[in-house]
Amino acid sequence: MRILIIGTGGVGAAAAAIAQRRGFFSHMVLADVDGARAQTVADRLGEPDRFSAAQIDASDEAALVALMHASRADAILNACDPRFNEPIFNAAHTARVTYLDMAMTLSRRHPTHPYSETGVMLGDAQFAAAPAWEEAGLLALVGIGVEPGLSDVFARYAQDHLFSEIDEIGVRDGADLVVEGYEFAPTFSIWTTIEECLNPPLIWERERGWFTTPPFSEPEVFDFPAGIGPVECVNVEHEEVALIPRWVHCRRVTFKYGLGREFIDVLRTLHKLGLDSTEPVRVRGVEVAPRDVVAAALPDPATLGERMTGKTCAGTWVRGTGKDGRPRELYLHHVADNETTMREYGSQAVVWQTAINPVVALELLANGTWKGTGVLGPEAFDAAPFLDLLADYGAPHGVEERGPGA
Amino acid sequence: MRILIIGTGGVGAAAAAIAQRRGFFSHMVLADVDGARAQTVADRLGEPDRFSAAQIDASDEAALVALMHASRADAILNACDPRFNEPIFNAAHTARVTYLDMAMTLSRRHPTHPYSETGVMLGDAQFAAAPAWEEAGLLALVGIGVEPGLSDVFARYAQDHLFSEIDEIGVRDGADLVVEGYEFAPTFSIWTTIEECLNPPLIWERERGWFTTPPFSEPEVFDFPAGIGPVECVNVEHEEVALIPRWVHCRRVTFKYGLGREFIDVLRTLHKLGLDSTEPVRVRGVEVAPRDVVAAALPDPATLGERMTGKTCAGTWVRGTGKDGRPRELYLHHVADNETTMREYGSQAVVWQTAINPVVALELLANGTWKGTGVLGPEAFDAAPFLDLLADYGAPHGVEERGPGA
Repeated sequence: MRILIIGTGGVGAAAAAIAQRRGFFSHMVLADVDGARAQTVADRLGEPDRFSAAQIDASDEAALVALMHASRADAILNACDPRFNEPIFNAAHTARVTYLDMAMTLSRRHPTHPYSETGVMLGDAQFAAAPAWEEAGLLALVGIGVEPGLSDVFARYAQDHLFSEIDEIGVRDGADLVVEGYEFAPTFSIWTTIEECLNPPLIWERERGWFTTPPFSEPEVFDFPAGIGPVECVNVEHEEVALIPRWVHCRRVTFKYGLGREFIDVLRTLHKLGLDSTEPVRVRGVEVAPRDVVAAALPDPATLGERMTGKTCAGTWVRGTGKDGRPRELYLHHVADNETTMREYGSQAVVWQTAINPVVALELLANGTWKGTGVLGPEAFDAAPFLDLLADYGAPHGVEERGPGA
Repeated sequence: MRILIIGTGGVGAAAAAIAQRRGFFSHMVLADVDGARAQTVADRLGEPDRFSAAQIDASDEAALVALMHASRADAILNACDPRFNEPIFNAAHTARVTYLDMAMTLSRRHPTHPYSETGVMLGDAQFAAAPAWEEAGLLALVGIGVEPGLSDVFARYAQDHLFSEIDEIGVRDGADLVVEGYEFAPTFSIWTTIEECLNPPLIWERERGWFTTPPFSEPEVFDFPAGIGPVECVNVEHEEVALIPRWVHCRRVTFKYGLGREFIDVLRTLHKLGLDSTEPVRVRGVEVAPRDVVAAALPDPATLGERMTGKTCAGTWVRGTGKDGRPRELYLHHVADNETTMREYGSQAVVWQTAINPVVALELLANGTWKGTGVLGPEAFDAAPFLDLLADYGAPHGVEERGPGA
C-alpha cells in the first residue's frame, strides 16, 4: 500500500511516526501547504525510501488530484482542518483513491430554530455523495480519529459482543491534563473548541431522529478511569451522533465533552461578551475578529506538550441489556498518558490519540481485513480486529462495568 | 462665580444640566477635545448667555492655562478621564483657579510586592503638590464625585455627628441596574472597570498604614437599601481609602464594589485569558490590545440609559461607638433611580449620581460655606451643609441603622 497524508500538523506528523513502526505500507508521502514543514517531518523520520514530502494547497482540487496520481497513492489520509474536507474528499473520488478523514464536513445551524432543529448536519455533504462512491466501487472511511473513530468502533463492538439490546450510547471524553506555567492554557485549539462547543449540540433519539439543544445542555459529572476522576461533561456537537445511529441499533445517542466547570465558564463568558464572534469589530482603526484575538492572547497548544502532564480518556458509555438478558452498563475507553506519548513519539497525548486510529484502520484496509464501498463510518466495520490491532500497537482499550450490574 | 468644565462626556454634560437649575454662578464654559460635542451640550441647555462652549486638548497644559484665563474662570471642574488629571491640575495652579475633580491621579503597583505593598498611590502626585497650593493660597478639592466624594462627606459626617469613636469605615457601592436587550452590558466603561478592579485593592489600618491585597479580596455580601438587596462586594482600589484616613479618625478603611458574582467572574476570566492586557498582540497581520477588543465588542454604556432600569446606591458603612457610648453601626447612603435621572436630566443614574456632587460643592464654595487652601479631600470640609444642600437639590441621602443596635 502507498499512502498520502495531507496535512503535517500535529496529527499528520504523529500518524507518520506511528505508522513508521509498522510494515503494512511501502511508501508514505507527507504533503502540506508548507512544503518545508512537510520536509522537516519526513526528514525527522530518517527513512527517505519510505517517507517523502510534497507541497500542496488543500483547497485546490485539481492540484490534489494531480498529487494523488503522482504519488501513486492507494489511500489518502486527510489530516487537515475540516474546512478542507470537501476538496480533498472530491479529489479522492476523482483520483479513485481510498479516502480517510478524522472529522467530517461542517454543519450549518438551522436558520430559525437553531437550538431545537438541525440545519445542515456534520457530514451531510459527504453522505450526499455516498451513491457516487458506491457506484465507483470506492471507499471513503469518514471520522476515523479517536472521537469520532475509536468511539464509534466501541459502539459497534458493544452491539456485536456485549449487549443483546442497547438503550443509550453516550460518547464521553475527559482529561486531567494540565499545562505548567500558565493560569489557563487549552490543550487544543481554542478557536476550534469555541466552534464545536458553541454550535448547537446534536442528539439522536429513535422516535425523534436528530435534534439540537442550546449549548452546554444536560450537564453531568462523569467519572473517568485511570485516576482522572469526575469531570463535568456537557452535550457538544460531534460526529458520533451523526454516525452511530446509521449502523448501530439503539434508542439514543449523545456526545458529552468533559470540559470541566472552569472551561465551560470561560466559553460561556466569551460568548456572553461577544468574544467568540468571527465577525470583525473595529478597534482603533483596525478590524479584527474577537475570536482570533482570544486565540492570539493564549499560548499555542501545539507547543505545550513538554509542559503538559496528565492523561486524556476517550470512550463510549453504553447502557442496555446484556447477552444474559440482564441490565448492563459499560464504559469502553482508551487512555493516553502525555508522558508516554511525548517520550515515545514526541506527540502530546490528545494529538497522538487522534493519530493512532487512522493508522490502525489503514493497516486493516491494507491487509484486507476491512473492506467496503461507499461513504462509511467506523461502525460499519467489524470492531474486533480493530481493537486487537490497537492492542498490538501497544495501546489497548479498557472496559469498565458500571451501573447496577457492576 | 464663573465655572469652566473640562470634558463634556456623560458626567460633564450632566453636571451642566444639574447646575442649570441653580443660580449660584453667572457663567459656565463647557470645553471638550471635541468642540462640536461641547457646542451640542451647550446648545441643548438653551441659555447662550449662561452656557458657552470651547474646544480644548486636555493634555496641553499651556492651552489649558490660556482657556482658564480667557474664560475668566473662578473654578474649574475636571470631568475628564483621570489620565488628564496632571496637566489640568497643574494648569489650574498656574492660572490661580480653584480646581475640582472626581477621580485622582493614577496609581502604579509596587514593582516587587504588588499584592501586599503600595507603589505609587492614587492621588500621590496631587498630594505632593499640596504645599505649593497652600503657599499660593489656592484650593484643589479632589475626589468630589459620588465615590470618592459623597462617600467621603458621609465619613466626615459620621465622625462629627454620629459617633464618638469609629472602628471601621467601609465604602460600599451596589446596584440592581439591568440593560434590556443584552446578555451582558456593563453600565459603565469596561476598560475602566478592568483597570480599577484588577489593580491591587488598597486598604488602610491605623497600625499598618496603607497596604494592598490581591484583586477581589475579602468578598462579602452587603445588603443594599431601596430594594436593591444583597450584592457580592469585593475590595477594589479606590480614592476613599487614600483620602479618609487623612482627615477622619478611625482604625480601618476599605472600599468594596458590589460587582456581583457574574461581573467578578467575567473580570477573572478576562484576566485568566490575558484579555485584560493593554499590550498589543499580533492578530492576522494587525496589532491590537486585547482590552480594547473587549471594549469594542460590548455596547457603549453611554448609549444605554434608555434601555436601563434599576437603581444604584453609593454609601459609607461605619462601625464604632455612638455618641451614647454604645456600639453603633450605620450605612449612610444615596440612591439614584435610573428612571428618574433619565426623565429629569436625560442622564443615566451612575453618571448623574457622580455629577451632582461637584455642583453642590461648587455652590458651597461660591457662597463661602466651604473654603480652604491646599489639596483637600471632601472630608476636610464640614459635611452638614453639603448634605443639606444635596437634599435641597431634591436628592437627599439616607441613614440606616445596622448591627446590634438596629
